Amino acid sequence: MISVPYYSLNSFLTSKSTNLGFPNFPSPSPLNFRRNLTSSSTELAPIKANEASRMSSLKINSDESSGLIRHEVSVNGRRSENIVWHKCSVEKSDRQELLKQKGCVVWITGLSGSGKSTLACALTRGLHSRGKLTYVLDGDNVRHGLNSDLMFQPEDRVENIRRIGEVVKLFSDAGVICIASVISPYRKDRDACRAKLPEGDFIEVFMDMPLCVCEARDPKGLYKLARAGKIKGFTGVDDPYEPPLNSEIVIQQEGEVCPPPEVMAEKVISYLDAKGYLEA
Amino acid sequence: MISVPYYSLNSFLTSKSTNLGFPNFPSPSPLNFRRNLTSSSTELAPIKANEASRMSSLKINSDESSGLIRHEVSVNGRRSENIVWHKCSVEKSDRQELLKQKGCVVWITGLSGSGKSTLACALTRGLHSRGKLTYVLDGDNVRHGLNSDLMFQPEDRVENIRRIGEVVKLFSDAGVICIASVISPYRKDRDACRAKLPEGDFIEVFMDMPLCVCEARDPKGLYKLARAGKIKGFTGVDDPYEPPLNSEIVIQQEGEVCPPPEVMAEKVISYLDAKGYLEA
Repeated sequence: MISVPYYSLNSFLTSKSTNLGFPNFPSPSPLNFRRNLTSSSTELAPIKANEASRMSSLKINSDESSGLIRHEVSVNGRRSENIVWHKCSVEKSDRQELLKQKGCVVWITGLSGSGKSTLACALTRGLHSRGKLTYVLDGDNVRHGLNSDLMFQPEDRVENIRRIGEVVKLFSDAGVICIASVISPYRKDRDACRAKLPEGDFIEVFMDMPLCVCEARDPKGLYKLARAGKIKGFTGVDDPYEPPLNSEIVIQQEGEVCPPPEVMAEKVISYLDAKGYLEA
Repeated sequence: MISVPYYSLNSFLTSKSTNLGFPNFPSPSPLNFRRNLTSSSTELAPIKANEASRMSSLKINSDESSGLIRHEVSVNGRRSENIVWHKCSVEKSDRQELLKQKGCVVWITGLSGSGKSTLACALTRGLHSRGKLTYVLDGDNVRHGLNSDLMFQPEDRVENIRRIGEVVKLFSDAGVICIASVISPYRKDRDACRAKLPEGDFIEVFMDMPLCVCEARDPKGLYKLARAGKIKGFTGVDDPYEPPLNSEIVIQQEGEVCPPPEVMAEKVISYLDAKGYLEA
């Protein structure tokens, strides 16, 4: 039986037949459990006492070759604990292999009534029928849960998009094709979400529908309320929508007819297929 | 060609061969697009003008039989727009069928150094090797992204757990076996996360390790800092840990030896298997 600190997983991960012992009080050890470079598995490295004592003065002390990555540790500041990054033994590539797809974010942006939710539904249906795992994050629905503490002040709107950006990043990392359907009127906020994702994994779909069309549809009756002054700061009425400058996909009317949901969805699916997201 | 408002998806979803037209300006219509009770698909119902005008005085106006569920609409309050719930055409049960598993949350709670991350890693590895889709949400890692705006004041700690609870709920809804690894010291906060999930889908795993064992391990060197007074409010030192009263799984030392990671993981996997989470 080998005695190693409980947080060294390397032996376990590379050899299931090894029976690991777990001492009650692992004494400080000169052993170095940093990543075994001959192995593709991740090893969690013990932090030695002298490293711990250095933490109090370090702002950044990352070691990406180990399982623990320490940064922003400052005991004089308020962010003094729990600031360690844990790598895990199953990576994004493993999940993608399992799912036979690549995790990414389809970010649908546009005015209220422009058809974002309609496209999201048709897209999740179309991809699901092809055996792909998708998840729709609807801006409205997130307001009921994760972002239920946020109102509609400018700073809350920024935070609303920031959190959605963080969640779609997690889903993408999980290997899921995550479909976000959010007005997200400000270019800066959308671009901040894009910047969190690996290159290419943020696919912006702009629902480029004329305001008059969206307002005529008014599926939630909100334009009517906004025009009556009962809602303030409504996008397209008294708050701006900043159209994307370089979105990956633009959905527009053809002549004066909006494309049917399945046509819009197929446009996105074709893009995902061409870019290799529908295979591992 | 049938003309229907763009947000009526029912015909599209139930019959791919139907070519839907999308009028530019759908005029108010007496047609009722509420859920077709003979169909299992979801239909998005248009909201009529008189419904919209009623919104200003309604607090709750839910209609779960339609795709749009409106509540908490109050134009006198601050929460006046975007408060609509969108159902989508692919449901949790569809994703579970695809994945051959049931979405749920394995919530691992315990002191710093109790082995939460170790169990999370072994568990994700064990389940992945059985072809199951998992995702680990580590409290430390979330502090870098979604919760990077939060500090360690009591209200921030509550919000930290609340948001993680909302995210694991989304993952569970996506069909993923979501493994949360967070100290989560307060019973009330953990129970609030449990209450968000469908009955049985929140599986609490208590890492019931003696403080002296965790402190001797001290993998991040944080106990040392806490004892030296360089970290205030550290769980187990000068802030309480409230052990679960009825957790689904308890991990303890056997004699004076901690179980190896694979043994801990198997205990959880056996539970998931017995409860039917490893099949659709």
